[in-house]
Amino acid sequence: MPQLRKDPIVSRWVIISTERARRPASYIDPTSYNTDPKTCTFCNDKTSTEVLTYERVRVVKSGNPFFTTAQELTLRNQGLHQSCHSHGSHEVVIECPEHIANMADLPVSQIKSVFKTYALRMWHHHNDESIKYVLAYKNYGVAAGSRNIGHARSQIMAIPVLPARVLDKIHGAKLYFDFHERSLFLDLVRQELKDGSRVIIESENFVAFSPFAARFPFEVWVMPKPKRQYYDYVHGIEGLETELAGVMKELLLKYKIGLNDPAYNYVIQSAPFGSAQQEAYCWHIEVLPRLTRTAGFERGTGFYINPIPPEMSAKFLREVKV
Amino acid sequence: MPQLRKDPIVSRWVIISTERARRPASYIDPTSYNTDPKTCTFCNDKTSTEVLTYERVRVVKSGNPFFTTAQELTLRNQGLHQSCHSHGSHEVVIECPEHIANMADLPVSQIKSVFKTYALRMWHHHNDESIKYVLAYKNYGVAAGSRNIGHARSQIMAIPVLPARVLDKIHGAKLYFDFHERSLFLDLVRQELKDGSRVIIESENFVAFSPFAARFPFEVWVMPKPKRQYYDYVHGIEGLETELAGVMKELLLKYKIGLNDPAYNYVIQSAPFGSAQQEAYCWHIEVLPRLTRTAGFERGTGFYINPIPPEMSAKFLREVKV
Repeated sequence: MPQLRKDPIVSRWVIISTERARRPASYIDPTSYNTDPKTCTFCNDKTSTEVLTYERVRVVKSGNPFFTTAQELTLRNQGLHQSCHSHGSHEVVIECPEHIANMADLPVSQIKSVFKTYALRMWHHHNDESIKYVLAYKNYGVAAGSRNIGHARSQIMAIPVLPARVLDKIHGAKLYFDFHERSLFLDLVRQELKDGSRVIIESENFVAFSPFAARFPFEVWVMPKPKRQYYDYVHGIEGLETELAGVMKELLLKYKIGLNDPAYNYVIQSAPFGSAQQEAYCWHIEVLPRLTRTAGFERGTGFYINPIPPEMSAKFLREVKV
Repeated sequence: MPQLRKDPIVSRWVIISTERARRPASYIDPTSYNTDPKTCTFCNDKTSTEVLTYERVRVVKSGNPFFTTAQELTLRNQGLHQSCHSHGSHEVVIECPEHIANMADLPVSQIKSVFKTYALRMWHHHNDESIKYVLAYKNYGVAAGSRNIGHARSQIMAIPVLPARVLDKIHGAKLYFDFHERSLFLDLVRQELKDGSRVIIESENFVAFSPFAARFPFEVWVMPKPKRQYYDYVHGIEGLETELAGVMKELLLKYKIGLNDPAYNYVIQSAPFGSAQQEAYCWHIEVLPRLTRTAGFERGTGFYINPIPPEMSAKFLREVKV
């Protein structure tokens, strides 16, 4: 069973997963996609444990999970070191029955079902008190940490600890709110819309922009204009669901056409359910193409080096016709 | 001129470097090294500005720097956004005159000169009050963010802000000290030596071990046994300098032989000169092979997934004969 371990210096949790151990010689990345549905794991999946079917989207338990249900949730101390079981759930969202690799090539209605599915799984897991956070995310392409299966899918992780990345953001929003009595996220959206130089797509209720301090070339955040803490607020509102799916499809098509089908990740950054001090927070999606590699400088400082200013990234993406 | 920009949410600085902008189509990684000294940039370098020669090691200014001397150091505010010039210095350490790619293949005496050179440049930059931190690090191999030049080199960045990664560590050490009145680092070294399962190399004054919550397969920290804040304490002490170089060579040879010449980074994590609250800190070197890719989960949570337990990594490396 995988373990969570806590770094005693910076209090960062790490998942130690014995099950995924490979021999060193096997760390060679594949470079092409499987284009043959006959040999596709997800086209021919008869054995996975299905946890949900929503319209044409299937959610199954990962066959190689990083998180599984544990009876024993207590921390184990070994001197300085703390560990606990990697309790939770690791699910795979198979985004369509067809053998299509990139979400950009799905119809808007199908993308809408995928994003709705994330919300359904979040609602489900938040009934479990031992789950502190549910992360929905996608790895597309080998450079983004995916395998070469060639079938559009994303992942849902229900985890027993709050993610540092989200906590840092909530903390920042709180500091800002305490000082200004305004929402940092709302002010940010207003400023980006007024400035315009980093905006890529604007719809009635959403904006897709490259953040001022973007870490990566062509990094984009998709954010609702009215501030909402939780990712699920769009769901059940037919127009909003379709609008979000439309913005995502347009953005992903711009990547595919403009950047030659790059690897990318996206991560949904919702507030954790039921935790305090997050009224100032607004959910958003970070979309992160994987065109550069981080090096020693990033590792040593925690800073990033981005070789393309976000204004240039935004202009480039605005001009890609889809 | 490159810019530093501050993320308004998590207060993380990012370097925005227009000079390094490339067209999207040029983001294709080379996969092999240049083995021909005749076409090597560093074998035939006549034009770089040399800042130091120490024995057979040359330090030159980077031809494409992320940090350069700026007249204007004030922050610029644009609404929520803060930016300033990327003031500082970016230097390249050419580790040997010969066309040798991997530090593992240098003699111990030469490695000793390289590590001494880092200390000399740290001392130099700390005379400048506008410099808050000096990071010495190495990128080896394309997957570690290097180019395929095939000539051993490392980098020195003198930067005007304190790195979050080091601050987080100092903060952790301080919390521990306040509670226990003991050094976290000293306790950590003691515990690792007593346990032994994660230790790879032990010399009289140094230990190389894989940390309990290692983020990456075969991640190793090299740490002095007696706690010292600053990286430079070994320097000027002939025996210690040679001992450190010997430990590094042995470790890098274990990587080369055992892991099939993998890409790796190392970063020297010294305390910042002259800042308070760091008595509990101990300098160390993080050595990070690049065998896996981070994916959406790491991006979304700030956590890492490590597919090999550090005990297994350590056992594997211990058993590699060099």
